[in-house]
Amino acid sequence: MPEIGIGILGGGYMGKAHSVAMSSVGAVFNTKLRPRLEMICASSPESAERYRKAYGFARATADWRKLVADPAVEAIVIATPQELHKEIAEAAFAAGKPVLCEKPMGATLEEAEDMVAAAEASGVANMVAYNYIRTPASRFARNLIASGRIGTVTWFRGEHTEDFYSDPESPASWRTTGMANGTMGDLAPHMINAALALVGQVESLVAEVETVHSERPGGTVTNDDQAQMMCRFSNGAMGHLFFSRVATGRKMGYAYEIMGTKGAIRFDQEDQNAVWLYLAEGPEAERGFRKILTGPAHPDYEPFCLGPGHGTGYQDQIIIEARDFLCAIETGEAIWPTFRDGLEVNRVVQAAIESSRDKAWRSL
Amino acid sequence: MPEIGIGILGGGYMGKAHSVAMSSVGAVFNTKLRPRLEMICASSPESAERYRKAYGFARATADWRKLVADPAVEAIVIATPQELHKEIAEAAFAAGKPVLCEKPMGATLEEAEDMVAAAEASGVANMVAYNYIRTPASRFARNLIASGRIGTVTWFRGEHTEDFYSDPESPASWRTTGMANGTMGDLAPHMINAALALVGQVESLVAEVETVHSERPGGTVTNDDQAQMMCRFSNGAMGHLFFSRVATGRKMGYAYEIMGTKGAIRFDQEDQNAVWLYLAEGPEAERGFRKILTGPAHPDYEPFCLGPGHGTGYQDQIIIEARDFLCAIETGEAIWPTFRDGLEVNRVVQAAIESSRDKAWRSL
Amino acid sequence: MPEIGIGILGGGYMGKAHSVAMSSVGAVFNTKLRPRLEMICASSPESAERYRKAYGFARATADWRKLVADPAVEAIVIATPQELHKEIAEAAFAAGKPVLCEKPMGATLEEAEDMVAAAEASGVANMVAYNYIRTPASRFARNLIASGRIGTVTWFRGEHTEDFYSDPESPASWRTTGMANGTMGDLAPHMINAALALVGQVESLVAEVETVHSERPGGTVTNDDQAQMMCRFSNGAMGHLFFSRVATGRKMGYAYEIMGTKGAIRFDQEDQNAVWLYLAEGPEAERGFRKILTGPAHPDYEPFCLGPGHGTGYQDQIIIEARDFLCAIETGEAIWPTFRDGLEVNRVVQAAIESSRDKAWRSL
Amino acid sequence: MPEIGIGILGGGYMGKAHSVAMSSVGAVFNTKLRPRLEMICASSPESAERYRKAYGFARATADWRKLVADPAVEAIVIATPQELHKEIAEAAFAAGKPVLCEKPMGATLEEAEDMVAAAEASGVANMVAYNYIRTPASRFARNLIASGRIGTVTWFRGEHTEDFYSDPESPASWRTTGMANGTMGDLAPHMINAALALVGQVESLVAEVETVHSERPGGTVTNDDQAQMMCRFSNGAMGHLFFSRVATGRKMGYAYEIMGTKGAIRFDQEDQNAVWLYLAEGPEAERGFRKILTGPAHPDYEPFCLGPGHGTGYQDQIIIEARDFLCAIETGEAIWPTFRDGLEVNRVVQAAIESSRDKAWRSL
Repeated sequence: MPEIGIGILGGGYMGKAHSVAMSSVGAVFNTKLRPRLEMICASSPESAERYRKAYGFARATADWRKLVADPAVEAIVIATPQELHKEIAEAAFAAGKPVLCEKPMGATLEEAEDMVAAAEASGVANMVAYNYIRTPASRFARNLIASGRIGTVTWFRGEHTEDFYSDPESPASWRTTGMANGTMGDLAPHMINAALALVGQVESLVAEVETVHSERPGGTVTNDDQAQMMCRFSNGAMGHLFFSRVATGRKMGYAYEIMGTKGAIRFDQEDQNAVWLYLAEGPEAERGFRKILTGPAHPDYEPFCLGPGHGTGYQDQIIIEARDFLCAIETGEAIWPTFRDGLEVNRVVQAAIESSRDKAWRSL
Repeated sequence: MPEIGIGILGGGYMGKAHSVAMSSVGAVFNTKLRPRLEMICASSPESAERYRKAYGFARATADWRKLVADPAVEAIVIATPQELHKEIAEAAFAAGKPVLCEKPMGATLEEAEDMVAAAEASGVANMVAYNYIRTPASRFARNLIASGRIGTVTWFRGEHTEDFYSDPESPASWRTTGMANGTMGDLAPHMINAALALVGQVESLVAEVETVHSERPGGTVTNDDQAQMMCRFSNGAMGHLFFSRVATGRKMGYAYEIMGTKGAIRFDQEDQNAVWLYLAEGPEAERGFRKILTGPAHPDYEPFCLGPGHGTGYQDQIIIEARDFLCAIETGEAIWPTFRDGLEVNRVVQAAIESSRDKAWRSL
Repeated sequence: MPEIGIGILGGGYMGKAHSVAMSSVGAVFNTKLRPRLEMICASSPESAERYRKAYGFARATADWRKLVADPAVEAIVIATPQELHKEIAEAAFAAGKPVLCEKPMGATLEEAEDMVAAAEASGVANMVAYNYIRTPASRFARNLIASGRIGTVTWFRGEHTEDFYSDPESPASWRTTGMANGTMGDLAPHMINAALALVGQVESLVAEVETVHSERPGGTVTNDDQAQMMCRFSNGAMGHLFFSRVATGRKMGYAYEIMGTKGAIRFDQEDQNAVWLYLAEGPEAERGFRKILTGPAHPDYEPFCLGPGHGTGYQDQIIIEARDFLCAIETGEAIWPTFRDGLEVNRVVQAAIESSRDKAWRSL
Repeated sequence: MPEIGIGILGGGYMGKAHSVAMSSVGAVFNTKLRPRLEMICASSPESAERYRKAYGFARATADWRKLVADPAVEAIVIATPQELHKEIAEAAFAAGKPVLCEKPMGATLEEAEDMVAAAEASGVANMVAYNYIRTPASRFARNLIASGRIGTVTWFRGEHTEDFYSDPESPASWRTTGMANGTMGDLAPHMINAALALVGQVESLVAEVETVHSERPGGTVTNDDQAQMMCRFSNGAMGHLFFSRVATGRKMGYAYEIMGTKGAIRFDQEDQNAVWLYLAEGPEAERGFRKILTGPAHPDYEPFCLGPGHGTGYQDQIIIEARDFLCAIETGEAIWPTFRDGLEVNRVVQAAIESSRDKAWRSL
């Protein structure tokens, strides 16, 4: 079983998730390439060493250049703050190493464009880490739409809402400064990516982006708390998206509803193992949204459990993502979403910010 | 127990609902004024007579002027097509008779303004029949917000969605022509009224109004299938509203979610006896949206049943409305929503249509 | 439209419900017979007069014999305490007057048997008032089962649970004494009746009946708080029933699940306008319980509203019941559940009490 | 970081789950002992080698004795058919090796008793693998009850229901013969274990165990399809349990409701990241079951994800179990459920089978 040396940059929230995923993806999916936890990089030698021990890496470093250059590191996962994405990715591509990069790709649209150029110039595997769309449930939803099961899509509503900043007395922090850490930088990309995957390209939009609580204990808030946009998809569907970190009561409100001429789909990540499907067929008296529990009949579920309804969780999405990344490396085939696919998300984010600033519709 | 002679114009969907409500409101609420079903008016003598027998009226007519002028008719309920609202209401006010008018008040904003003027000139009781907001659940939600239980409102999302036209093969009919019969005329007013009641005045909005299926068997569709708007409320809250008659799977999607700094509320008329309340208080580990079943502890429930969770239904909303109308007549005090209150809804509808036409934000 | 003079005995919880139902049933269902609220009887002249005014009866009395004997009273609704059911019903039958009697029929099995004999000797319409099974949702569930839609029933679980006595500090009252007022007398009959209607006759059972809190402020509790039974239906299905007035959190827990070889049904009265149906057909990946909202496609819904999902409530069940009673009178045909049908419920109750006492299975 | 060599017997459903868990538990929980996948045993050399490669073990064997005896194998996980549990466990204990054994411990009560004796004689770590009770949600539920949050428990209802044999045309297989493979052997132990953990010891019970479809294509069914029992817990609570593999529509129906004098809890594994909690406190108008999403505020959640509501899945339960097993080995402290704890489940199973045979209550 050929091994592949993995280097992960960042050991916090996502760095841990990727580390665990790389530990178990082989056993779960019986992958051809087997990850070897080669090196982890964090902001200081101490934290890097702490992560190394905790996650079981062979080596640690506080110098990302060292990790990228190390010959035993054969694939790179970028889970650093967004400000560093571009520089690291470009170095990795220059060294001919495949990159899985946390969303969104760069801190700005320009950076994202540069990253796409670097990725495509390198010709190696490149992927943006949009994990939520990889659940068996959302993959099933995509398949249903793509196969025409709900007819022509006429309406899409999506949201990514959480409430970790809903209390106005929660103090200011690094999260409350820097566009990349606001709702449009942190939460919106996930649901925009979902909208693109489920319905298709966005043609035009009008948006509002706002800071609800501009002052918090400890400082002024300089990025956005919530945002919404109305949009028109290229295929004609009408859409609405909402993003918030002040959505009181919402913990993991990655949710969408999609209406078509023959059916409808509803999904909420807070109950991530269910897809609600309505089909406009059969006797009127027997129609209703059905709660379908994911199981071996749905994409990517069976490797986790043979029993339907037994459920996958957050970590499992990252494992699926790791499988896809390994597969792209092994086969040399592009796997969605590549950096180019990811760029589309950044374009929508940028257009939304400009629309809000100008209080006007914008075309993409 | 003093009686009051009721005249109802229209015997279809809403005409029947009002007739039943007037039959039972006395026994349910032990009202001071007791309705006597005096006269019903329909489009032909035959249908009027059929309704008379079915609902138990004393007399029938096909001439609305006769009904309005009849001395035994002491209060008027208008449940005709919207085109007739204005003329009938003005005649009733001129005769000094209280009027309960189906929503929306007039076929256009101008008509609505004229109707308000007539109502206020007459000085008699006048009410617009927004029934859904009168459920015990929605009354409770209003009280929760008004009392500050969920803090300052930061976000409102509302919808009125049904799917009776979601099949593109459903034939054209009177419903598919005439602005008043489209989604903005027929469904939107309910949820706009709810938004005004729950959050307050709308200050500005940007909207999209569209016909999804412009050709149907039997003819061209000349009014709208779905519409959405983003709005800003006067108190600073951000909002979104969506209206559709092509919302596949939705039967009575009169639903809203309201987030505040201290809590959140969710409601869906498809499960009209429950209010979902989240309170940001108590231990983090015990927080969650609670499903509160309406009962005697909530407004206007107890007269229907002493047992909590036993449930009220569609017809009960109309009975509550009838109680309020009788109360306004008896006490001479204005009861929300008066014609003036209802006018605000028409203003928002008008602004939305203009915004959609101009593809631009509009202030109110 | 022929009128029929109605006499109602009891003006409290159920007395009011029947009075309201008789006021509106004509307009709702366009019945041939039109009820006239002729006389109401209560325990004192004062309360009787109060009820008369509130509900709109022509006359009042504190003497039930006077009501039964009155020539203008042509049909009788018994909503008194259970101790009086037998005597009143027998007098009514003796006078040749149709009777709608609140459940359960008598205070004991013997009384119930006597009442059946009296009813059948009289030959007039007789019905027991099991209202919950009359919702459009439960009627639809019955039809689904009867038509074989879910195949052969293999499992039935039912409950009637409320929590009005879940607090051990709730004081003793009339409700805490007298077998008829305990859970087996008050709540169990509803769900036993449902089990019989949905699945069929009970062949054998083993039960536990218990008083959870035997002492309450103000006195000793002499009837039961909760009870359960396992049973075997004549058609071979296995069953379980649970009844409780100390079911913390349950407000109207009249709920059942029914599994068959081809499908399954779930229902909970706390969301009374929905039937959950699972069908073991179509692709595995698309199977799930579907939430069907009642609408015009379901039994007895349309007269209340033309819109699906708009919902019926508690009072509407009583109106449906009144329609059935009037229909039985008019046509002379027995309408389920007659006194004889109701007797079966009392038999199961009696067997359960004996099984619990003997701690042994019992055959019926 | 000290390593520990793991040997797993069985490579199918549960063998894989344990293999994956041992791959990732170190990184997830930062355990002191780090598992090394040393050897896997399966029924043939070919399958053993296939599992070795797939899951990443160092070595494979078809001889369980070889695995148990191997000096590099320092801890044993038994995931074989139940018939082999006893012999393997005894050999492992004799060799002084800690054992994690799949439920239920033995094929019969006698075997289970022998296994307890062997475990206790050895003095090494021993655990029975009841994974479902280890979710953050069920751990939280246990804590709530233990801390008195819902007062004195008065009622418990539990079920473990699935529908993999609900179709009478599903062919006979190894699953349809052998008591250990029937519902009482395969599914019931999970929920009995949950009942014991949540409420406490069972004092007496009456049960029904039955084969619903005794003939299937391909052969006669010799074990049970569904079973139920009423029980009394030692602390006085009344209970009911239901187990089924023919529960049409149920995929992972590991569910319970627990009512107490101050509150109630509901849980369903089909939505395993939510606990429904009702508290009989605060204003009546604000009471309801709240849906609490598990998060860092709940037991064992945070190592999987810092975000609440992001969810854990089936595999994560096995990882928690692995953590507990490693912890028991490392600290030498017994961790629930030990073999002795697990024996109690077998006792209840045995009593239920006897009660059903005798159609009588039984004391334990």
